[in-house]
Amino acid sequence: MFPALAKLTVAARLAEVRTIDLNADLGEGYGPWSMGDDAAMLGIVSSANIACGGHASDPETMFATLRLAKANNIAIGAHPSYPDKEGFGRRRLPFTTSEIERFIAAQVGALMAIAALAGTSVRYVKVHGALANAAAEDANVAGAILNAIVAIDKNLALLAISGTQQEKVARARNVQVISEVYADRGYADDGNLVARSLPGALIDDVDVATERLLRFVETGMMPTVSGGSVALDAGSICIHGDSAHAVSMAAHIKTALLARGLSIAPFVSHA
Amino acid sequence: MFPALAKLTVAARLAEVRTIDLNADLGEGYGPWSMGDDAAMLGIVSSANIACGGHASDPETMFATLRLAKANNIAIGAHPSYPDKEGFGRRRLPFTTSEIERFIAAQVGALMAIAALAGTSVRYVKVHGALANAAAEDANVAGAILNAIVAIDKNLALLAISGTQQEKVARARNVQVISEVYADRGYADDGNLVARSLPGALIDDVDVATERLLRFVETGMMPTVSGGSVALDAGSICIHGDSAHAVSMAAHIKTALLARGLSIAPFVSHA
Amino acid sequence: MFPALAKLTVAARLAEVRTIDLNADLGEGYGPWSMGDDAAMLGIVSSANIACGGHASDPETMFATLRLAKANNIAIGAHPSYPDKEGFGRRRLPFTTSEIERFIAAQVGALMAIAALAGTSVRYVKVHGALANAAAEDANVAGAILNAIVAIDKNLALLAISGTQQEKVARARNVQVISEVYADRGYADDGNLVARSLPGALIDDVDVATERLLRFVETGMMPTVSGGSVALDAGSICIHGDSAHAVSMAAHIKTALLARGLSIAPFVSHA
Amino acid sequence: MFPALAKLTVAARLAEVRTIDLNADLGEGYGPWSMGDDAAMLGIVSSANIACGGHASDPETMFATLRLAKANNIAIGAHPSYPDKEGFGRRRLPFTTSEIERFIAAQVGALMAIAALAGTSVRYVKVHGALANAAAEDANVAGAILNAIVAIDKNLALLAISGTQQEKVARARNVQVISEVYADRGYADDGNLVARSLPGALIDDVDVATERLLRFVETGMMPTVSGGSVALDAGSICIHGDSAHAVSMAAHIKTALLARGLSIAPFVSHA
Repeated sequence: MFPALAKLTVAARLAEVRTIDLNADLGEGYGPWSMGDDAAMLGIVSSANIACGGHASDPETMFATLRLAKANNIAIGAHPSYPDKEGFGRRRLPFTTSEIERFIAAQVGALMAIAALAGTSVRYVKVHGALANAAAEDANVAGAILNAIVAIDKNLALLAISGTQQEKVARARNVQVISEVYADRGYADDGNLVARSLPGALIDDVDVATERLLRFVETGMMPTVSGGSVALDAGSICIHGDSAHAVSMAAHIKTALLARGLSIAPFVSHA
Repeated sequence: MFPALAKLTVAARLAEVRTIDLNADLGEGYGPWSMGDDAAMLGIVSSANIACGGHASDPETMFATLRLAKANNIAIGAHPSYPDKEGFGRRRLPFTTSEIERFIAAQVGALMAIAALAGTSVRYVKVHGALANAAAEDANVAGAILNAIVAIDKNLALLAISGTQQEKVARARNVQVISEVYADRGYADDGNLVARSLPGALIDDVDVATERLLRFVETGMMPTVSGGSVALDAGSICIHGDSAHAVSMAAHIKTALLARGLSIAPFVSHA
Repeated sequence: MFPALAKLTVAARLAEVRTIDLNADLGEGYGPWSMGDDAAMLGIVSSANIACGGHASDPETMFATLRLAKANNIAIGAHPSYPDKEGFGRRRLPFTTSEIERFIAAQVGALMAIAALAGTSVRYVKVHGALANAAAEDANVAGAILNAIVAIDKNLALLAISGTQQEKVARARNVQVISEVYADRGYADDGNLVARSLPGALIDDVDVATERLLRFVETGMMPTVSGGSVALDAGSICIHGDSAHAVSMAAHIKTALLARGLSIAPFVSHA
Repeated sequence: MFPALAKLTVAARLAEVRTIDLNADLGEGYGPWSMGDDAAMLGIVSSANIACGGHASDPETMFATLRLAKANNIAIGAHPSYPDKEGFGRRRLPFTTSEIERFIAAQVGALMAIAALAGTSVRYVKVHGALANAAAEDANVAGAILNAIVAIDKNLALLAISGTQQEKVARARNVQVISEVYADRGYADDGNLVARSLPGALIDDVDVATERLLRFVETGMMPTVSGGSVALDAGSICIHGDSAHAVSMAAHIKTALLARGLSIAPFVSHA
């Protein structure tokens, strides 16, 4: 029932508004170090998930990234994480749900305040890395994240992977949730991402990735690694930009979407 | 002219409302480490300057301190600092004014978001340690701090040392500023604190400290180390609580103020 | 067979040399924060496990603690941990064994170099907290720790909890290993510590703790929470000093051991 | 007198042994972040200054860099810094000389222990960034650094900028010191580097940099920004590799030196 609904939602939305969001993780440098080509990606995406000191970033990096996002009229999201720069937020750490509530609040609050200083504002939250995986599987973790978001600002939306506990918990709590699909990750028949250790997990070929995504946005059915397809809901496509190849793929996908008459626009208004 | 005005202000205020604020630095632990006796101080003060991750604290410590402050109906202030836990914010670090704006925003924003999670809110900002000294002397540093405060929330007040650049810049920018005097620090004839390296800088004797403070709150004239006095404005008294002796002094001062018919209340309403 | 051997070892050793080591965790402050009463404990113990920047400490704290240990003629051990100050090394973190080797080396190497600066040297290693628990159970973790120790200095001894994988792996690799028992922790019949969440895990009563320990050092049999006893090997007794109560217990135990004619001395010579 | 001696030293050494060292700063990543092209530089230089957790690096990065240096038969130096990753060690921080001794020891000790784990060893120390500048000017800072080095290992050499207090203090204390010149930095007539804020501070043109360096190694006289020259002593040339341009310049310089019949070899034997 949920997939059917999702299919209708995507198909109906696209048939009507012909608009989809492209989001990417940005501002993932730290001190003297940079990661990815933020300037290039800011010319491609409509929404920026900005690191806020958990897996990456510091006040200077946040400010510079927020200014760039504002200058490009891009919607701004907070991208909190387990506090783990050395592991880039990719290790699942033994924090309790209470502790998760508090560090999420600290990170999102820091970014919001720096956004105010940069003359813009944070409109949504997307959780990073291992914490996103934990929240996808565990309703308690998802609930802790929502506790923080709702306490800070009831108008913050949540950008979550399609089909996860995080998406379900947000809907149950009437938090605006936008689902995303990944441009370069393989899907299993149950709608989950194929684990990185398995074949088909990563799609390297730009044409294959683009063609698959076009099929999805026009039908609401995502091709799977088995050769089948699965209905997914999505208001946003996550694209990666942490290599020259990734930037090229992102640009290619955007061009292909535009060529089919789709518009690229954020799912929330930018500030 | 300013001191005369200040004198009238203090004398007039106290004659009329018979109320003064007591503030203390709280929540200055970190991870497994604690500092001072927060529980004792929360029973004494009316305003709590809560560390927000610069010189001390972390999300768990902030949350616990905010909950205690809320339970005691105490007004909550953010207590940002140079980001320097090992030096406890007591080293003057070579940050630019732009960098100061951004780390102040990050720290205050983090505390505000955790306060929302704790069901309370931050009402004012008081800068800590070496950064407070820099802001007392340097209008550019004071201005950077105000840039951050005003951008985040125009309703935040500033608690600043009486007679400093910080106080002057805040008044010039129409930010609500409350001046404070120190219960246990000696004053020079020009109204500045005596440097810690000089005789008379610290007042250890509870009776001496209390008697001096009573003279000040009843006349608006602060006795100085030279034997003279100087007019100071003050809506709050800063008391320290980082030792058993300090807690005892704080309690003694409060009792003496109450005995003279003064009320102890925050200068801003608590959340 | 192992317990019987252990019993003989302890009984024989004590019958002959009448000497046992007392060790405690010291130097567990960080920046402006302190923990426990190091000065008091240094007057009681014969070996000091000194934090080296993992769960606690920094170069200044290490140096000051090393100087104090040297002044008290106490044997010095490195006390490495998962790098986790906010969690005080008490959370089991998902580090690989390769990563464990490297951070153990970094921490022990830092302490050794600061010891050289302080005119003393590190003679043994005792792992802290959650990493000690992991090494007790998992021979691979124990092996990673030994890889680091042996690479740095073949003459470093290992102080390990009696009956653990760490002890076994060290023996198999011909690293000098000294087993320890805990003065204030309950033992199960299999020789393991009772988990902190279970009844009997902590012994608060000084007389009970002392009496139990005397029975152990004189018989080699440790009384257990079930009312039975278990043979344990031990060349050292770990005592805690992170509260006034703990210091009092430590002093009491030392006095009782001396009263029975035992000597307190390190298991390795001090530098 | 000193410059004359230096000139003879360089000229004589090169006339006789026709060998010079090329050194570069390597291993300056942190966690998920990298900096520069270490693999390319390791094919060019004869000595590697490896970051040890002050301005950059962590145990994993240190280990990986040490392994690469060992595989390339390159001499390994420790590259300690003010502990300031966000500022990359480029801010002069208010540490006392005692504090400098201790953090230098901690950083060098950590790298030495990880080097042992990697099957190699640290042969020299070169101080990084703002601390190198402080040590160049201030004999007390230079002395503090030497206190740490000598305490740790009397056989460690010091690689220092030619003509600095650091070089002089090391000679006075009979520590082996090797002087270096910079391939891409302009020199003033007094032998000091031109400050980065002044014209001529950085040499961008590969041919200009190479030609200047060849003149220096063949005459002992370094061309200056005024059009004159200054006698400098040098056993090593520092080249930068933090951009594609820098790697290209480094390769070009090496080729030109080899073409003149010079050999490139470390000033200390590699482990």
